[in-house]
Parts: sequence; C-alpha cells; structure tokens
Amino acid sequence: MPNKIKKLAVLTSGGDSPGMNAAIRSVVRTCAYHKIECIAVYRGYEGLMEGDFKTMNARSVKDIINKGGTILKSARSDEFRTKEGRLKAFNKLNEANVDGLVVIGGDGTFTGALIFNQEYNFPVMGIPGTIDNDIFGTSHTLGFDTALNTVVEAIDKIRDTASSHNRLFFIEVMGRDVGHIALNTGIAGGAEEILIPEEDLGLDRLVDSLNRSKKSGKSSSIVIVAEGDKIGKNIFELKDYVDENMSGYDVRVSVLGHMQRGGSPSCFDRVLASRMGVKAVESLLEGESNFMVGLLNNKMELTPLEKAIKGKSKINLELLRVSDIMST
Amino acid sequence: MPNKIKKLAVLTSGGDSPGMNAAIRSVVRTCAYHKIECIAVYRGYEGLMEGDFKTMNARSVKDIINKGGTILKSARSDEFRTKEGRLKAFNKLNEANVDGLVVIGGDGTFTGALIFNQEYNFPVMGIPGTIDNDIFGTSHTLGFDTALNTVVEAIDKIRDTASSHNRLFFIEVMGRDVGHIALNTGIAGGAEEILIPEEDLGLDRLVDSLNRSKKSGKSSSIVIVAEGDKIGKNIFELKDYVDENMSGYDVRVSVLGHMQRGGSPSCFDRVLASRMGVKAVESLLEGESNFMVGLLNNKMELTPLEKAIKGKSKINLELLRVSDIMST
Amino acid sequence: MPNKIKKLAVLTSGGDSPGMNAAIRSVVRTCAYHKIECIAVYRGYEGLMEGDFKTMNARSVKDIINKGGTILKSARSDEFRTKEGRLKAFNKLNEANVDGLVVIGGDGTFTGALIFNQEYNFPVMGIPGTIDNDIFGTSHTLGFDTALNTVVEAIDKIRDTASSHNRLFFIEVMGRDVGHIALNTGIAGGAEEILIPEEDLGLDRLVDSLNRSKKSGKSSSIVIVAEGDKIGKNIFELKDYVDENMSGYDVRVSVLGHMQRGGSPSCFDRVLASRMGVKAVESLLEGESNFMVGLLNNKMELTPLEKAIKGKSKINLELLRVSDIMST
Amino acid sequence: MPNKIKKLAVLTSGGDSPGMNAAIRSVVRTCAYHKIECIAVYRGYEGLMEGDFKTMNARSVKDIINKGGTILKSARSDEFRTKEGRLKAFNKLNEANVDGLVVIGGDGTFTGALIFNQEYNFPVMGIPGTIDNDIFGTSHTLGFDTALNTVVEAIDKIRDTASSHNRLFFIEVMGRDVGHIALNTGIAGGAEEILIPEEDLGLDRLVDSLNRSKKSGKSSSIVIVAEGDKIGKNIFELKDYVDENMSGYDVRVSVLGHMQRGGSPSCFDRVLASRMGVKAVESLLEGESNFMVGLLNNKMELTPLEKAIKGKSKINLELLRVSDIMST
Repeated sequence: MPNKIKKLAVLTSGGDSPGMNAAIRSVVRTCAYHKIECIAVYRGYEGLMEGDFKTMNARSVKDIINKGGTILKSARSDEFRTKEGRLKAFNKLNEANVDGLVVIGGDGTFTGALIFNQEYNFPVMGIPGTIDNDIFGTSHTLGFDTALNTVVEAIDKIRDTASSHNRLFFIEVMGRDVGHIALNTGIAGGAEEILIPEEDLGLDRLVDSLNRSKKSGKSSSIVIVAEGDKIGKNIFELKDYVDENMSGYDVRVSVLGHMQRGGSPSCFDRVLASRMGVKAVESLLEGESNFMVGLLNNKMELTPLEKAIKGKSKINLELLRVSDIMST
Repeated sequence: MPNKIKKLAVLTSGGDSPGMNAAIRSVVRTCAYHKIECIAVYRGYEGLMEGDFKTMNARSVKDIINKGGTILKSARSDEFRTKEGRLKAFNKLNEANVDGLVVIGGDGTFTGALIFNQEYNFPVMGIPGTIDNDIFGTSHTLGFDTALNTVVEAIDKIRDTASSHNRLFFIEVMGRDVGHIALNTGIAGGAEEILIPEEDLGLDRLVDSLNRSKKSGKSSSIVIVAEGDKIGKNIFELKDYVDENMSGYDVRVSVLGHMQRGGSPSCFDRVLASRMGVKAVESLLEGESNFMVGLLNNKMELTPLEKAIKGKSKINLELLRVSDIMST
Repeated sequence: MPNKIKKLAVLTSGGDSPGMNAAIRSVVRTCAYHKIECIAVYRGYEGLMEGDFKTMNARSVKDIINKGGTILKSARSDEFRTKEGRLKAFNKLNEANVDGLVVIGGDGTFTGALIFNQEYNFPVMGIPGTIDNDIFGTSHTLGFDTALNTVVEAIDKIRDTASSHNRLFFIEVMGRDVGHIALNTGIAGGAEEILIPEEDLGLDRLVDSLNRSKKSGKSSSIVIVAEGDKIGKNIFELKDYVDENMSGYDVRVSVLGHMQRGGSPSCFDRVLASRMGVKAVESLLEGESNFMVGLLNNKMELTPLEKAIKGKSKINLELLRVSDIMST
Repeated sequence: MPNKIKKLAVLTSGGDSPGMNAAIRSVVRTCAYHKIECIAVYRGYEGLMEGDFKTMNARSVKDIINKGGTILKSARSDEFRTKEGRLKAFNKLNEANVDGLVVIGGDGTFTGALIFNQEYNFPVMGIPGTIDNDIFGTSHTLGFDTALNTVVEAIDKIRDTASSHNRLFFIEVMGRDVGHIALNTGIAGGAEEILIPEEDLGLDRLVDSLNRSKKSGKSSSIVIVAEGDKIGKNIFELKDYVDENMSGYDVRVSVLGHMQRGGSPSCFDRVLASRMGVKAVESLLEGESNFMVGLLNNKMELTPLEKAIKGKSKINLELLRVSDIMST
C-alpha cells in the first residue's frame, strides 16, 4: 500500500560528515513537497528512544545546505543495541504517529535500522553519510568528496614547506579499513607513495620507492598513510624506521585528524545529498523499506541494507596503477 | 603495429580549464614510465604549426598538478583550419620525429585533430578539458568539478549579503549551450529558480516561482542563469523585467565571469586528469587512434572523436526535478 | 554617571560586511560579562522604529562568529531621516528600557546615530562595519580585510586563465569614493595598473603602462579598476578604448560585484570585531557617548562620530609607489 | 656614500613562511626599478658559502607572489656559524661583485647576518619572515596573517564535528615561545580557553573554565594550546588529565602541524612583503645597513638587527581580556 505514509522522521547517527545537513534539508523539503509531515530526531538513536523530536517545515532547514556537521547532532547509542532500547524507540515513534524513518550514517547506523525494522516491521531507509566511502552500494558516500578536497588542500600547504626544505613528510589521513581517501588524495597531492589498508607493500618497497624518487632528482617527498595501513607500523614508527635506515632525509610527520570530517560541503556533496534525500523519501512513499539509497553510474539506486552492510567497498585497482605511474 | 610509437607530443587548445596541467603532467609521466619520449607543444595548434616544442621529462612537470590554467598556453588558430596550416604542422611533427599527438581541449580542438588525422593518418587521442561538461562520451570533463565549487563558493558569499538585505539576485554562470553548471550549482547554492539553455520555462513561471517563494516566507532569493538561457533575455533584461513587473523586490545582478575558468583543480579533477593522461598515452601505445578518453561509470573508456564531437551531452532530468523539490 | 546603563541595544545598518556577526556576538557577550541586559534590533533603523527587538544572552550568538552577513539584517531607512521617525525609535527604546545603543555600519549609519543623540541625548556608540575602509578614525573597518582576500582569490583565478591565453583583463572591484580595495588587491594580485578614485592618471598613462609591460615580456596583464575610478570611463568603455587604440590585445572585463561583501570573515576581522564590541560596550558603560571605536596603531581608540563622518580616510601614498615599482 | 651599491643578493633562511616569495619578488623588482643588478642565493647561508647564485631580472619572479614556501629554498647551516664558513661566503659574494645582502627569515637568520656584517662590514638588511610573529620591531612578521587564517579555517572545520558530537577538542597550534597564533586564533575560533607560553593559568583554572562553559549550556568546547604552553603538559597529557579528572567529556586532540607554514599568502602578507622588499632595497641604496624593516603603526620602519634579535615581541594583554570576555 504505497501511500500509507503520512509522517516521516529523520536522524543522523555515527560519525558526522559534510553533506549531512544538506541531506536533512532534502528529506524535510521532499516531505513538504509531497505534503507529508516530517519530524527531526536529535542525537541519533539516543534521541529516538527519548522522543527528542522537533516538527520541521520547509523553512526549518533554510541556510543549512552549506554547513558542515549535522544540526541534528549525532551520538553512538549502546542502549539502542538492546531489545528494551528499541522498544522505547518504537513507542516514541508510535506516540508521534511516525510511519517511516530515514537514517543518515554509516554501517553501524544501518545495522541498527535493519534490526529495528526486523523487530517492528517499521519502514526504514538509509542514506550513506561518512567521509570514508566504505559503504557498498554507492560509488560515493556523503562527505567523501568534501573530505578529499580538505585533505588535498592540506597536502598542498605541507608541500610548500616540504619543498622549501627538501623534506620527507608522512601524512596520515582517515581510513581505518579502506584506502579510498589515501589513494585519491595521494594521487591528487602528488605523493611518492601511498600506504593503504588493502595492500601490504612492505617496508622494503617504501624504502626503494623513496630512494628511486631521490635519485630521479626530487627534492622533497610526500607519503600518504591511511590510519589503518597494512604495513603494521603507525606513522611515528614509520618515521623512526626511515630515520634509522635511510640517510639524508629530514623526516616529518603530520596527522590531519578530525579537520577532515568538517567544512562546508562541496558542490558534489550538496547535489548528492539533495538527490539522496528525494530518493529516500519517495522510496518510502512508494512502499519500499530496508534499502539504502546510493549513487551507481550517476543514477540513484536502491541497495538492500543487508547488502550495504555486508558488502565490501573495493579500491579501484586502476587508481593504484595510476599512482605508480605518476610517481615516476 | 601497437608498439611503433617512440615519441609523443601533447598540447592544450581552446578555452583553458582547471586540471589541464594535471593532464599534461600525466601524459609526460606516463611517457617517462613507458620510456617513450615526450615533447610539449606551446600555444595549441599555433605552436604546432610553428614547431614551438619543448622536450619534457618527468621532472619538467613537477609542482604543476595543483595549478590552474595551462603551462603550455592555449590559443585559437584560424590557420590550422586550412590545408596549408595542417601541412605545416605535419612537417613540424615529422621533423621532430613525433609519432602521436595528445590534444587536450573541447570539441573545436577535437575537430582539428580529427581532420588532421584524416589527412595524414597521424595517431591522435583527445582528452576533454573544458569547464562546461558539454562533451559526449564522458560524464565529467576536466575542470567541470572545480568550476562547480568555484561557483558555489561565490553563491554562498552572495547569499550572505542577499539574506542580510532581503534581496533577489540574478547570478550568471557559464554555459552557452548546456546548463550543467547552472543546474548543479543552482541546487547546491539553494537557488529558487535555475534558467538553462535546454529549457524555456518562460517568464511567467519565473514570476510565479518568485511569488511563491516570497509567500512561503523566504526573505531572499537567488536565481541562477546560464549564459545561454532559453528565455531570450540577458540577465540585465531579466532584472529590468522583474523591476517593472513585480513589486517589493530589490533586484541585483552578478555575472561571475572568467573567474570560473581558473583556480587550483579539485581532488576529483586532479585524479581524473591523471587517469585520462595514462589512458590517452597507453591507448596510443596500443595502436589506437582517433578516440577521446572519458569517464563512464567510473571507468576510463574510449569514444570515437567523431561521436564525441557530434554527440550531445544531456542534462540529467532527475536534477531538474530535484531542483524543483528543493525550492519548495 | 558612568554606571547608569542597565540595558543596551545593538543594530546593523547600511551595506553588510563580513565581521558584523562577530561584532554583534561581542556586544552581546560583553553585556553578559558585565551583567547588563542586551537586546538585538532587527533591520537597522527600520526595526528600531517598529520595536522589532529580541532579548539576547550569551548563547543567542553562538556559532555566528564565522558567518558572513548580519543575522540582524540590514536596511536603509528614509523614515529615520525624519523627526517623526526618530521619535518613534526613541519611544520604542524607552518602552523597552534601553539605555544605550551600539550601531554597526558606515557613515550613513553614524549620521543617523549622531542626530538621534543630539535630539534625545541618547547614548550611542558606533562600530565601523563596511568593506570599503572609507571611515576616518580607524585603520581598518570591519570586513575590509576579508574583502581583500576575496578579491585576491578571484584575481588569482582570473590570472590563471589570463596567462593561459595572453589576455588583458580589466577587473572592477568595489570602492566608489576610495581606492583602498583596488590599491591593496592590485599590489597583491600583481596588477600592471590600478585605477582609483583618488587619482586621475589619464588614459595616456594607462596605454603607456600597458605598452611598457608588453615590451618587457609580460604575456598577460591585469588592470584593477575601482568602481569610482577618476578616469571618467566605466570598465566597459575602458575595454572599448583599448580595443580601438591598441593592437595585439585580447581584452576581457570582469566585474566582481556583490561577492565581495560576503564570506566567512578572516581571522583579522573576527578579532577586530571582538575587540570593537568590547570597547563599544565598555565605553558606554563608562559614560562615553557619540564616539566610534576604531583601530589606531593596533590599539582600540575612540573618535567622535562627527569626526568619523566628516574626516577623510586617505590612501597610503607609499602603496601607490610600491605598486609602481612592482609592475616594473 | 649612499649610491655605491650596484648589485644586491637576496636569500631566505630558517623556517619558511607564506609571503617569502612575494618578498623575493619585491626585492628583485625594486632592484630592476633602480637599475641595480640582483642575484638570488639558493638554500640560505649554505648556498651563500657555495656560491649557489642565480641572476634575476623582473621576469624571473613572475607568478610567484601567490605561492607559499620559498622558491630559493631554505636550510639551516652550522658551517655559517663558524668563522671559516663566513669567510667562504664573503669570498663568494666578492667574486660575484655583490655589494649588499637582503636576508629573509627569523632571528637565527638575523644573528647570522649581524655577525657577518660585524666581521666584514658587509651591508645587510633583514626582512622578518616567520609565521610566529615573534620578532621585535614589527607588528606583523611575513606569514603570520596567512597562518592565522589557515588555523582558523581548520578550527572552523573541527568545530563542525565537535558540535555535532558534543565533544571537547584540544587543538595544538604553532608557537614555541610566543602565543600570538594561539591568542588570535583562539578568539577568532571561539575557543573556550587558550593556553600560551606567556602565562601559566594552571590546570585548575582550565578545569574551572570548562566546567563553567558546560554549565552555561555550551554543548561543545575548543581549547587552543600553543606548542610551548606554560602549563607544563603536552596536549596528550592535557587530554589524559581531563579524562581522569572531569566527567562527561568526550575529549579529542588535534595537532595542526606543518600545514600552518604553507599556503598561498593572504592579501595582507603579499602587500606587506611588497612593501618590505622595497624598503629593504632602498634602505641599502641609501647607505643603511644592519637593520630590519618592519611594520610599525602601518608604516615601514627600520629597527637595528641587534634590537630585533634581543627585543621581545609581547602578547597584547587587551587580547587576553577580550578572550576571557568572549568565552562568557
């Protein structure tokens, strides 16, 4: 029964990412467009269990499309992992006459939504919001493109000082399990080597690569290291290794950190967020549930939440090769 | 005979766009990687006819990946449109022992390359570099993503002052024949209405839309106008029309202009340029000719130059609908 | 009687500028710090006459220090120029028990405040907020530094495309009566010539200068033109003049426009706004009235409003000379 | 004898800073303007001793005004601290017929220049280039303003994620001996507390301040910590302290690092660099020596190198107070 939905709720959960506000705005305005009521849930699943709700209209979300972070706040919730917690949430949604829920977040967020749906048959729809781009079923997660530009701008600045002093810099970027940020920003930042979680190239290759780069006349070098790189050493240990095993290098370390999560979203992320919000709401109105909306081949597509959670977002091997060639 | 190529040339032609330097760097480094010689041609086809060449190695292109414009300069050439002009170019390439040519530019550039190939059977490969995204055979041209961010940052600034004064702004963005920039930045900039060359929505709808927006409580409004909008009025005439036919508006005009062509390329454009350079050179080395490299479904693909020139790069109709819903 | 003040009001008026929100925040928080009540007045003197007030506390102004524009809106008011209008305003302030008024704006704003004070002996204090830096009694107005960076970023982008095509660009920047923006951004943007309202260098010198620049081997040129340049031609007429009287130039025009008024304020403007807000409130609390706070020799100083309005903010002649030398 | 100088040399030394290239450009162009020869020295005092020189003309420095770092490279030199080293340098300068030397750097750089002058009576002039603003005799060192903006943009991004998660962030900024960067960016970034080398406020006050901020309803907090803060704990120890001694905080640390040294210089730094280069060259031409050029009360002034080195660049106490009031 496609048109049973009269009122939707939207929340953000897990780590925040640029574009979440644009997605909230899109969900709210798409509801307004279809004359559906819409409420916002604060602090993710925590606020869902407590009934921390606010009625939204089209004007409630003005001037947020360009803001980083999430106006709805985000939080991790242990209680929502329990049966009792989810019952509370279900009761609060019922009391507020909410018929469907849009959750914006990463796989932890989707897992919660999936279990909640299985227990209460409550219609849910997911929007992938995380800078890591580690979700199956979408070529781009919300915030990924913005984070790439943030990282590249930082690398450009570091390169200014690196090349003024002929230094070697190890720069750590986000990515505990996947190397998307490292790989793309490494290419765009002109890095000599990129260390990612998917590949253990070994310290020997790193040393070889740096030596080759030096011989070829490069006066400074940048190595991008994903948080979860496979080489088994953290970025400070890498510095020590090079200090001890290679001569003639003035090695420095820079950990970019949480700055990568913030900032005004790029045009790409704002458009993507707007599209995803429309697709999520309209899919719920059409009677769909338990899906994540995603960008596949430049089109909005639905992927079952279960697949989105279990699937793997793979590194593009072509990019690895491009990176190798570029550091010639 | 795939491996006959020993020396390549690369040039940029037509309007410049961010990412051209990153593409030049990629062509040069891919040649170095495959131990192929590479020369740069200055000032597009003009320099080709004059033999304005420079030998490049991997180090010649350092520190340019993040620079806007093109270090090889660009120019339009009437002479290359003549048989005599192309003969000159062919002779210069022969004298320099060049076996293949990579051209970076738009459809004018590709047309020149195609005719040149047809006359002399000279291997050519195209890389689409233009901010307008108006080339068939690639979802993104080089520079398009950067231009989108440049425009959105300008809109954000204008919105600050628009909403401080409850003003209506008409903002003109590039796009003589296609509305890609207008459509994407209009959504991302939160515009009330977007006027593009592909669609004549008529002045009445514009007036309706502005009135509706005012009634709904919006205190300021932004209308994005592509240079070539179909409504048949330029942006200053639009202002006059609203001044005369609508009351209660303080209307201003802003023409963003050439600023949109410059700037340090985004991460996306740098990665795209790097991939395209690799693909262009390796395709020539594999014996291909007369193609344009492009991004289709996140993969590098070849499209015959003829198709790239004649084909149409179409507006995504889903975006038009998203734009309508967002301005609720 | 220094400590008679128990409640202050703050408003923004005239053209908006980056840093106005930071100044509002500072006024509100300084009131909170001194346990003084504070109300915000919306839409400048219009809102003052209508009693469009809102009580503010320290939390009311969170997250605005980095926002362009003014959350209090701005407007020009004809009615406040009349005796009746000012009486209305006085009555509204009395009804709300307001003892003093901080106005943020330019000389039009200060003139209104001065007359209001003269009629009702109502304590007023001015904060200079305008991007033009055209106020006597402060080395920097709020928003000037931010506007300089906005303009320079735009010039940098335009130079990318100018030098790719060997073009001559005329770029119009704000400054109807003073050339501060033109002069500073012209130096910082590497302009060949700078046309300002304070100086009529004559078309002949412009032509000479461009010819010299061309001979010296420059492949592209940028001329910065203040809106109110003395040469008596607008920027499009300048282009026509060069097109007709000089050969070998491909001339383009770019009018930067309202973009210059917006954007997140620079560090300098945020700190300046914070200092000015403190000084304005504390001066009122100390019994001062009818002054403008300003930055002189890196210190906060008071200048009588009358002087601020009548005085002239002069161009630094040293900068004119530096500009000449730099375009060698 | 004012006009004995026929040829100048310029070098950069010590840590690089944004604006150094603009200063090099200014030195070179001012020489060209006065028809004086000019050579560039690579790698600071190292290159001076080796004769690593390059003749410069006005065109040699095109397109560098907007580039971070230093095209002349920088290096620290132990050898120049020896008599033998300085003799080498003197001989190289003599061989090249150089009559005067402009050094761009910090107090280490100036100390070298001073001793060199004392030994050989060689005319030297200093330009203060360092982001720390720790030089006596100038209100602003080259690069300081740019670094402030870089830091504030990073804080803005971190605040997005901080306020989405109600977190407390400790952010480390540069400043081993002086708190200028911390103090200005702390105010501009809306920090709750600022820890600087000049002041030991003690852990108790930090704890108090955070508790007060929490009670007042703030949902997230940022504390800016200068590298050399007096509290005697590094930033990770601060985090541990709060984790152990305060409840209800989710504390994170971000070390901004070398990114702060790079980036395209702000308008302010480009203009300052242009003015300083002119003043340095013209002072040498007028027969002055052993001075540093500086900005005092918006004018170019000379300070004896000895004073510049020994003097103290003091924190503006007014800013400390403004910071306190703003975190109300």
